[in-house]
Amino acid sequence: MKAAVSFSVGELARAVDAELVGDSSAVVTHIAPVENAGPASITFITGRKYLPALERAAPTAVIVPVELAEQVPITRLLSHNPYLAYARLSRLWAERLLPEPNGFIHPAAVVDPTASVASTVTIDAGAVVQANAVIGAKSRIGAGAVIGSESEIGENTIVHPNATVLHGVSVGDGSEIHGGAVIGADGFGWAPNAGGWEKIHQLGGVRIGDRVSIGACTTVDRGALEDTIIDDGVILDNQIQVAHNVVIGKNTAIAGCTGIAGSTIIGSNCRIGGAVSIVGHIRICDDVLVTANSFVNRSIKEPGSYSSGYPLEDSKTWRKNAVRLHRLDQLARNVILKS
Amino acid sequence: MKAAVSFSVGELARAVDAELVGDSSAVVTHIAPVENAGPASITFITGRKYLPALERAAPTAVIVPVELAEQVPITRLLSHNPYLAYARLSRLWAERLLPEPNGFIHPAAVVDPTASVASTVTIDAGAVVQANAVIGAKSRIGAGAVIGSESEIGENTIVHPNATVLHGVSVGDGSEIHGGAVIGADGFGWAPNAGGWEKIHQLGGVRIGDRVSIGACTTVDRGALEDTIIDDGVILDNQIQVAHNVVIGKNTAIAGCTGIAGSTIIGSNCRIGGAVSIVGHIRICDDVLVTANSFVNRSIKEPGSYSSGYPLEDSKTWRKNAVRLHRLDQLARNVILKS
Amino acid sequence: MKAAVSFSVGELARAVDAELVGDSSAVVTHIAPVENAGPASITFITGRKYLPALERAAPTAVIVPVELAEQVPITRLLSHNPYLAYARLSRLWAERLLPEPNGFIHPAAVVDPTASVASTVTIDAGAVVQANAVIGAKSRIGAGAVIGSESEIGENTIVHPNATVLHGVSVGDGSEIHGGAVIGADGFGWAPNAGGWEKIHQLGGVRIGDRVSIGACTTVDRGALEDTIIDDGVILDNQIQVAHNVVIGKNTAIAGCTGIAGSTIIGSNCRIGGAVSIVGHIRICDDVLVTANSFVNRSIKEPGSYSSGYPLEDSKTWRKNAVRLHRLDQLARNVILKS
Repeated sequence: MKAAVSFSVGELARAVDAELVGDSSAVVTHIAPVENAGPASITFITGRKYLPALERAAPTAVIVPVELAEQVPITRLLSHNPYLAYARLSRLWAERLLPEPNGFIHPAAVVDPTASVASTVTIDAGAVVQANAVIGAKSRIGAGAVIGSESEIGENTIVHPNATVLHGVSVGDGSEIHGGAVIGADGFGWAPNAGGWEKIHQLGGVRIGDRVSIGACTTVDRGALEDTIIDDGVILDNQIQVAHNVVIGKNTAIAGCTGIAGSTIIGSNCRIGGAVSIVGHIRICDDVLVTANSFVNRSIKEPGSYSSGYPLEDSKTWRKNAVRLHRLDQLARNVILKS
Repeated sequence: MKAAVSFSVGELARAVDAELVGDSSAVVTHIAPVENAGPASITFITGRKYLPALERAAPTAVIVPVELAEQVPITRLLSHNPYLAYARLSRLWAERLLPEPNGFIHPAAVVDPTASVASTVTIDAGAVVQANAVIGAKSRIGAGAVIGSESEIGENTIVHPNATVLHGVSVGDGSEIHGGAVIGADGFGWAPNAGGWEKIHQLGGVRIGDRVSIGACTTVDRGALEDTIIDDGVILDNQIQVAHNVVIGKNTAIAGCTGIAGSTIIGSNCRIGGAVSIVGHIRICDDVLVTANSFVNRSIKEPGSYSSGYPLEDSKTWRKNAVRLHRLDQLARNVILKS
Repeated sequence: MKAAVSFSVGELARAVDAELVGDSSAVVTHIAPVENAGPASITFITGRKYLPALERAAPTAVIVPVELAEQVPITRLLSHNPYLAYARLSRLWAERLLPEPNGFIHPAAVVDPTASVASTVTIDAGAVVQANAVIGAKSRIGAGAVIGSESEIGENTIVHPNATVLHGVSVGDGSEIHGGAVIGADGFGWAPNAGGWEKIHQLGGVRIGDRVSIGACTTVDRGALEDTIIDDGVILDNQIQVAHNVVIGKNTAIAGCTGIAGSTIIGSNCRIGGAVSIVGHIRICDDVLVTANSFVNRSIKEPGSYSSGYPLEDSKTWRKNAVRLHRLDQLARNVILKS
C-alpha cells in the first residue's frame, strides 16, 4: 500500500470532471482526510463547517463544493458532489496500488476441465473452480476461493480470497464477494419428526445481480424451492446473514452484523443499519431506513425511518430501570386507573 | 440446479408412504410452493387456509392432510404430516440434482499419510486432511476444507467447502458442517496480569454428535479443560457463536446469529430464535423456546416461552420513548408515591 | 488431544514459581476444573468458596491462594494468583499436546518467490503466501490460510487454518489470527449517486500490534484513507466486526459477536461484552466496561460500567410490556401532568 503513486492536480480534475482553480501542475501522492491533510495530499470537504480544519491543514489541493469556491484560497477542484468526486479519485489510486489481476490462471489453482473460463480471467493459487462453472471476462477468483459446480460468475466480478460460492449460484457483472463469505449454503429448513428434525433439502439457488457487493463473512443461503435473490446494486457489509428465500431489492444498503430471517422481502433503496435483526416472512417496502441495532419484528408498509433498542446507560441506572421494565404493564394500569 | 429431473406421482407416493388418489402415472419435474405451483409441479398444503391458493395454482399433484382428502379435486397424496412428506420428497430431488460424491480423493487434495480415510470417502480439490485424522465411510470433505490432526469425522458426514475442523475435534455420523464454519478454535480464556492478558491455552476439544448440522460461518470453540459438546440431532443455523465449554442438548434448534457465552448449558429440545444473546455460566432447561432477538441474561428453570427486546417504532416515537426509559425507575417511584 | 502427558508436581511448582507443600514427586497427567478433579489431576481454586468442592474431589495436587495454605490438606502449590498460575500451567500442556510447528514449508503450500519468509517459519498445506509478503521467525501459517501481497507478519505469530490476511496488512509479534478471520477486506464506503452507490476504494491498511488475538470468523476491515488499528495486547473473540478506521487501544478485550461501526475510537484497558453493538464515529475512553448485549449509541467520556438491553421475561409478560413501551412517553406525560 505504500508504493509511490503520484498524479498532477490537472489530471485529477479531468478525471472527476471538475473545474480547477489554481496550479494544475502541482503533484499529489495521496488522498487524505481533511484533519490529516499534509503536503502532497489532496483532500475534500463537503460543507462550510470543514473550512477551519482545511485552514489548519496544508493540502496541495482540495475538492470543494462549488458554492465555497471563493472561500478557499488554495488550489481547488470545484464539484457539485465532492464526496462522489472523492469516490472517483479513490478508484484512480486503487488501480495503481492494488494487486493487479494478471489474467493468468495460477498453476496451483484447480479448474475442472468442464468449467468455462473466459481467457481474461485471473485465478489465484489454491482457488478451486468446479464442474461446469462459468466465469466471465476479466473476473478474478482469489486465492483459496471456491466456485461450485454449475455456478455462473459474470464479467468484471471479483471473488476474494477464501470466499465460497457453492453450486448453482449466479452472480452478475461488476460484483464483489469478499473473503470468508459463503453464498449458497443450505437454508435452515427442517421438519419436526418424533422429537427430532428431518432435513428439508434446499433445492433453490441464489441469484445475485450486477454491481452487488457482499461483505466478508457474510452468508447468503440458497432457497428451499425457489431462489434467494439479491438484486442489482445491493451493497451488503460484513457478517450479514441472509436466510433462504429472502429477496433484497435494488440498491438497498445493509450495514454489518444484520440478520434477515427466511422469506422476508426487502424493497429497493432501503438503508438498514448495523446489528439489526429482521424476523422472517415479513415485507419491508421501498425507501425504508432502519437505524442500527433495531429489532424489525413486523412488516413495514410506509417509507420512513424506523428504530428500536434500549440506549446506553450507566450500569447502576440500567439495573434499576430494567427491574421496572418487567412491571411496565402494571405501572401503566396503575396510572390509567388513577386518571 | 436446472438439470431435468422427473418422477411419476406414483413413485413419489410410494417414497413418502402416502395414499394416492388420482393419476399415478402423471409426471412432475419439480416441487413448488403452493402460490407458484404450475404445470408439472407437486406442491403441499398443511391446512385448510391454503385451499384457495391451491385452487388458483395448477399443480399436477399435491400432498394434503388426510382430513382434507375430499376437498381437493386434483391428484393428491394423503398424509398425516404433509410438511414431513415434503421434507422427504426434497431428498429425492436432492439426490438427483446435487453434485454427487464420487468416492474419489482429488489429486489436488492433500491427505497426510498417517490419516485414516475410508475407501468410500470423497475429498475435493484443495482440501487438507492432517496427521492421524480419521474419516469414516461415505463422508465427504469439500474443496478447501481442513480436517485437523487427530480429529475424527464419522460416516456419511459432509464437511462443506472451506469449512475448518481443527485438531482434536470429533464429529459423529450423518452430520453436516457448512462452509466457513470453524470448529475447535481456541476458547476465549485469558488471565489478567499487570494490565495485560495471559493466554489460557485451551486443552479441551469439541465433541459433535450424530445428525448434527452446523451452519455456514458458525464457530464452535474448543473447551478450556474439558470438551465443548453438541449433542445428537442439534441443528445450528449460520453465524452462531458457541463459546468454550458450552453444552447443547439433543435436538435443540438454534437460528442464525445467536451467540452463546462460555460454560452455558442448554437442554434438549429447545428452540432458540435468531440473534439471541445468551450470557455465560447459566443453565437453560429442556423444552425452552426463546423468541428472536432476546437477551438471555439469567438461567431458565421452567420449560416455556421466553422473550425480550424492544420492538420496532417509527424513529420519532422511539427517540421520545427512549428518553423516558432512562428515567423509568423515577417514573415508577412517582406513581407509587402517589398511590 | 488424548496423548499421554505427565509432569511431576515439583516440575509444575518450579514452572509457575510457586511454593510447594507436599509430595513433589507425585505425577499428574492433566489439569482439571475443581468439580471434576480426579486422580492424577492438578486443579486450582481462587477462593474459600471452592474448598467444599475441593474436598469432594480427589486431585493429586491443587494451586491455592497463599492465604488458604493451611486449610488444604493435600499436596498444594501456593500462589498469589492461582488463576494466572493455571494459565501458565496450561501452556506447559499445550506445548506437549498441540500439533508442533515443524519449521517446514509443506510442498503443497504456495509461496510466491518474491515473498520473504524466515527459515524457521512453518507453512502448512494449501496455504498461499503472495508477492512481497514478509513472515518473521518462528511464525506459522495454517492450512488454507492466505497472506496477501505486501503484508507483513511478525515473529512467533500464528495465522490459523483458513484465515485470510489480505494485501497491505501488518501484524506484530506473538499474535494469533484464528481460522475464518478476514483481515483487510474493504471497508464499507460508498458514495450515493443517482439512486445507486459508487464504491469508495479503500486505500488504507490494517495495523495489528504485538500479542494481539483475533478470534475465528472475526473481520477487521482496511481503512478508507488511513489504517484501521488494533493496538498491542488487544484480545478479540470470535465473530466480531471491526469496521474501517476503527482504533482499539492497548489491552482492550472484546467478547464474541460484538460489532463496531466505522471510525469509532476505543480506549485502552476496556472490557466490552459479547453481542454489543457500537455505532460509528464515537469515542470510548480508557477503562470502560460495557456489559453484554448493550447498544453503545453515544460516546463514553468517563471510565466506569455501562449497560443497556431489555432483560428476559416470559413471552406473555413481554408482549404486554412491549405494548406499553410504545406509549411510554405518553405514560410519563400523564404522570407528570398529575403531579
